[in-house]
Amino acid sequence: MGGSLGIDLRQTGSYTVLGISRQAATCREAIERGVVDDASVDLQLMAKADVVFLCTPLGAIVSTFTQLLPYLSPETVVTDIGSVKQPIVEAIAPQWQNFVGGHPMAGTTESGLDAALSGLFVDKPYVLTPTAATPPTVLEKVESIVRSLRARIYHCPPKTHDQAVAWISHLPVMVSASLIAACSSESDPQVLDLAQKLASSGFRDTSRVGGGNPELGLMMAQYNRLELLRSLHAYRNQLDQFITQIQQEDWRSLELQLMTNPKTRSQFVG
Amino acid sequence: MGGSLGIDLRQTGSYTVLGISRQAATCREAIERGVVDDASVDLQLMAKADVVFLCTPLGAIVSTFTQLLPYLSPETVVTDIGSVKQPIVEAIAPQWQNFVGGHPMAGTTESGLDAALSGLFVDKPYVLTPTAATPPTVLEKVESIVRSLRARIYHCPPKTHDQAVAWISHLPVMVSASLIAACSSESDPQVLDLAQKLASSGFRDTSRVGGGNPELGLMMAQYNRLELLRSLHAYRNQLDQFITQIQQEDWRSLELQLMTNPKTRSQFVG
Repeated sequence: MGGSLGIDLRQTGSYTVLGISRQAATCREAIERGVVDDASVDLQLMAKADVVFLCTPLGAIVSTFTQLLPYLSPETVVTDIGSVKQPIVEAIAPQWQNFVGGHPMAGTTESGLDAALSGLFVDKPYVLTPTAATPPTVLEKVESIVRSLRARIYHCPPKTHDQAVAWISHLPVMVSASLIAACSSESDPQVLDLAQKLASSGFRDTSRVGGGNPELGLMMAQYNRLELLRSLHAYRNQLDQFITQIQQEDWRSLELQLMTNPKTRSQFVG
Repeated sequence: MGGSLGIDLRQTGSYTVLGISRQAATCREAIERGVVDDASVDLQLMAKADVVFLCTPLGAIVSTFTQLLPYLSPETVVTDIGSVKQPIVEAIAPQWQNFVGGHPMAGTTESGLDAALSGLFVDKPYVLTPTAATPPTVLEKVESIVRSLRARIYHCPPKTHDQAVAWISHLPVMVSASLIAACSSESDPQVLDLAQKLASSGFRDTSRVGGGNPELGLMMAQYNRLELLRSLHAYRNQLDQFITQIQQEDWRSLELQLMTNPKTRSQFVG
């Protein structure tokens, strides 16, 4: 993600892009490929930065910021690209006034320099999560950079962001992961074998995100725990309603719910 | 589906295909398009048939068979293409010895003559569900026709079929339908609005089958009720396990489960 940011920001011609990596080889490669203007393993390089994007995995954002803190000049604006915002904002904002949380929703499942793509953010959502304490100039500065990526910018409080992504991103992972685990619990080997042979596009699509990177699933559960639990409880209530309708052969209620779904879904993924 | 069968069976050059429709216009069109050799609204046409495929929607298969019964000659072999097998087999087999249930798993969501496609069954599963009472010659006759469609043939008891499709076809619909309904239950309009704007491929794939044809969802729940409930209960147990792990911050157990999922999924949709 950091690589994709570097490529696009350099292409605008408006920015000098400096990169930090733990690996000297990654720094050299990033410079050679033109992903950054300069790169170093030494955090001191960030002393020159006007705006710092923290692009580590979610679990390393706050500790990376803490390491960086001694090198930052007081006017430097800091932002991050973590997929959960409340714990990040709560940890960093009290230590750094010129901070605003961000979440570009344009990932690939790949990571590293090889995954860096030009134009990754175009027309993709990029959520910024200022609080009442965020100076307007800080928000404006990050927003002007994000605008140059041609992303669709949204603003909201960190908690609103985390609740929204719980519904449309983190809940689907758990729903889908439960499907895979439940299907494999079948104890009759003949049924399990046949199910494996007959599975096709319906199972494929519904199980896709639950069969993805386990570290990502774990991380979203750890960092967005309360909002994910909130959506999981609402989901279980809905599931129980369907189970009860089917048990009681209340076909009219089941049909009414199923009939509203195509339209409801189109409001999310029109 | 009946139209696709007609197209492929005629193309083999080995069969004369006769069709029945309620609409005279459909009969004329099927003949003109070369989907059938002859067609009629009059069930009498089936008196000439060696093998009859019942291709109505699930809810009309048994009643169509009952209407057809007086016209059939005793040697005629009957099969159907319904997506649930136990209730169909239990209703028809006692009345017609030369019956074997079938389920070609190659549908499109479209129906009618316009959806008829050549080669629809190639490399797709086609399950045949003989019972102990099915004469081997009946199975062989239907199987030789299905083989000419170049489908992948599986045999199993009707109940095994219904349990397998409950897992990989009917459960995913309810899992996915619950996701759509749960997400739309969000009561904070700002969160709901943001969730709708941020939803992308993860939500799109996981919600696809739950936002499909409500009649199909209802029908599978009605006809495969007990097996669907069996899989729904196993699913809810698995979901509850995830919820408990997240509530108790039992990250090791959650991670272990998520880590087995990619491999488990590949056994279904390798």
